Amino acid sequence: MTLRETFAANLRRYRKAVGLSQEELALRAQIDRTYVSSLERCQYAATLDVIEKLAAELGVDPVELLATPDIDKLST
Amino acid sequence: MTLRETFAANLRRYRKAVGLSQEELALRAQIDRTYVSSLERCQYAATLDVIEKLAAELGVDPVELLATPDIDKLST
Repeated sequence: MTLRETFAANLRRYRKAVGLSQEELALRAQIDRTYVSSLERCQYAATLDVIEKLAAELGVDPVELLATPDIDKLST
Repeated sequence: MTLRETFAANLRRYRKAVGLSQEELALRAQIDRTYVSSLERCQYAATLDVIEKLAAELGVDPVELLATPDIDKLST
């Protein structure tokens, strides 16, 4: 699993856990509306600044977005 | 401490722990020779791809490069 794939899986999981759409999260994190969707499809490599903003909006430590998810958590 | 500052402190600490110069690490990670120096001065926001390459060369999990360092470790 590449780091982009790990990040994409965590981003989607935490975003759904707080009940935000991709657009709502992008708006709150003040990043382009379609960028969250692109990140969740591994199309771009997020920077530290974007990771920091998304983590803050999701209420998680940035480290959580890079941690290798447990296989059973991936299906949620 | 911003995520750039956390990353910079961890990058420098792990790089020194394995005895690599900034240029040597950049060469091994196949990134621009001066980029490691810029990252350690918080001049740029590293991307997931760069974080992944640097972590691989340093032999650490990418998560370690974003973890908030213990204050006493910062002086090493």
